[in-house]
Amino acid sequence: MNQTDSPEYLARKSAYDRLITVYGRKPVYEILADRSLEIFRLHLADSNRGGGIVEQIKSLAAQRNIEICYHSREQLARISRNSKQDQGVACDIHSAGYQPYKKALEKLPSADQRPLIALDGITNPQNLGMIIRSITASPAYGLLLPSKGCADISALVIKASAGTVFKGNILRCESLAKALPAFIEKGFEVCTLSSHQATPLAEFKPQAPIIYVLGNETEGVSKEIAALSKHRVGIPMANGVESLNVAITAALIAFSGL
Amino acid sequence: MNQTDSPEYLARKSAYDRLITVYGRKPVYEILADRSLEIFRLHLADSNRGGGIVEQIKSLAAQRNIEICYHSREQLARISRNSKQDQGVACDIHSAGYQPYKKALEKLPSADQRPLIALDGITNPQNLGMIIRSITASPAYGLLLPSKGCADISALVIKASAGTVFKGNILRCESLAKALPAFIEKGFEVCTLSSHQATPLAEFKPQAPIIYVLGNETEGVSKEIAALSKHRVGIPMANGVESLNVAITAALIAFSGL
Repeated sequence: MNQTDSPEYLARKSAYDRLITVYGRKPVYEILADRSLEIFRLHLADSNRGGGIVEQIKSLAAQRNIEICYHSREQLARISRNSKQDQGVACDIHSAGYQPYKKALEKLPSADQRPLIALDGITNPQNLGMIIRSITASPAYGLLLPSKGCADISALVIKASAGTVFKGNILRCESLAKALPAFIEKGFEVCTLSSHQATPLAEFKPQAPIIYVLGNETEGVSKEIAALSKHRVGIPMANGVESLNVAITAALIAFSGL
Repeated sequence: MNQTDSPEYLARKSAYDRLITVYGRKPVYEILADRSLEIFRLHLADSNRGGGIVEQIKSLAAQRNIEICYHSREQLARISRNSKQDQGVACDIHSAGYQPYKKALEKLPSADQRPLIALDGITNPQNLGMIIRSITASPAYGLLLPSKGCADISALVIKASAGTVFKGNILRCESLAKALPAFIEKGFEVCTLSSHQATPLAEFKPQAPIIYVLGNETEGVSKEIAALSKHRVGIPMANGVESLNVAITAALIAFSGL
């Protein structure tokens, strides 16, 4: 058994996989002040000067018994993955439902066949936050979020989600085109949203667990994804309206089982 | 017959009632450039200097045969009702469904008993625009929008609505507390949204035409409105989420007949 197979290593890796890292002084301060969040570690750059908000952050962490790790500016940039905006401060938040999709797939589809919602090219943090909030509140299983082509989970997204980012299932993948075939192999069927030649949402009665894929408002889903899709559903619209905001569409789908 | 009863006066008044006034140089320029909008009149302050965007606005109006009216700075402020931000420019857009609620009530409830959605204390223009877009696209009759306590229809709202402000029914009133009794008299029943002791939305099967009232996210509906309400419905939420964005709630209700 080598080191990467040991139970301790796997348990530690699994815990790390469920951390969401947030950076920036004000966002980290607000997160530390929110006692409902389970914070794993605070990361500070050695180069931070004392005083001001950095001192307040340290004192909040001390009150809450949160481990503080000190790093060089370069090491901190590797943790935040955004050296331009991290301001020498980052923290890891534990989020039980935030996980690599392969991990979740081991347990899916669950007996109740709840749908998943996947995003393709949603770059607006405000929309992503609203989508996470609605899906987390809905009867759907959760969100499949690619790192390629979608907004990252940033302080803006957390704010727009009203803190729900840490409450529901968010499955991560690198590329949606690569992750979807693994779901299809497990018995899922992919359904895209479309205004052309689509089944009205209310009439769509799937026989298998579904992953709905939402594309961005101007371009829709990419060709690669359309090729993997078995179903097309649409939301009929009145008064000549051509499209809905993507966060509205996500909510209508996530709650459509109601 | 005095002047205010003449058929000409009434026809003119009715046409004026259906105008939405937008102000500010860039918003007016963008509206004039959108050929799908029916523009009634362009208003300019005498004090505008020639050149730049004002010249482009004038030239667009001339191309489209839109009447240009010149006013003193004070007269223009009365038209825009926002002298601080009008920049000496305003225009009136014709919108067939934008009307005083009393006008609409003459024809309501319509045979199909479509619901109305009323807003109480929605001050965020982004939310108002998204709500208008969703309701206009939905099977609901339209929106009841009070001038007291809600955002005005501004350039920001029009943008967030993706131009749908001019497509659906928007009934205006001054105060919701004063307008709702007129709807109740016509056979409507008022339904508020609530997370406490509420009927789940999916189980709510109204026997009369309904006006759903949505309050703002922090305070909910006001007491006056709650007193007029006959029904309370709620949207059950998973994962301990406490509330949805108000634009999401509006969409789920407007499309709930689906």
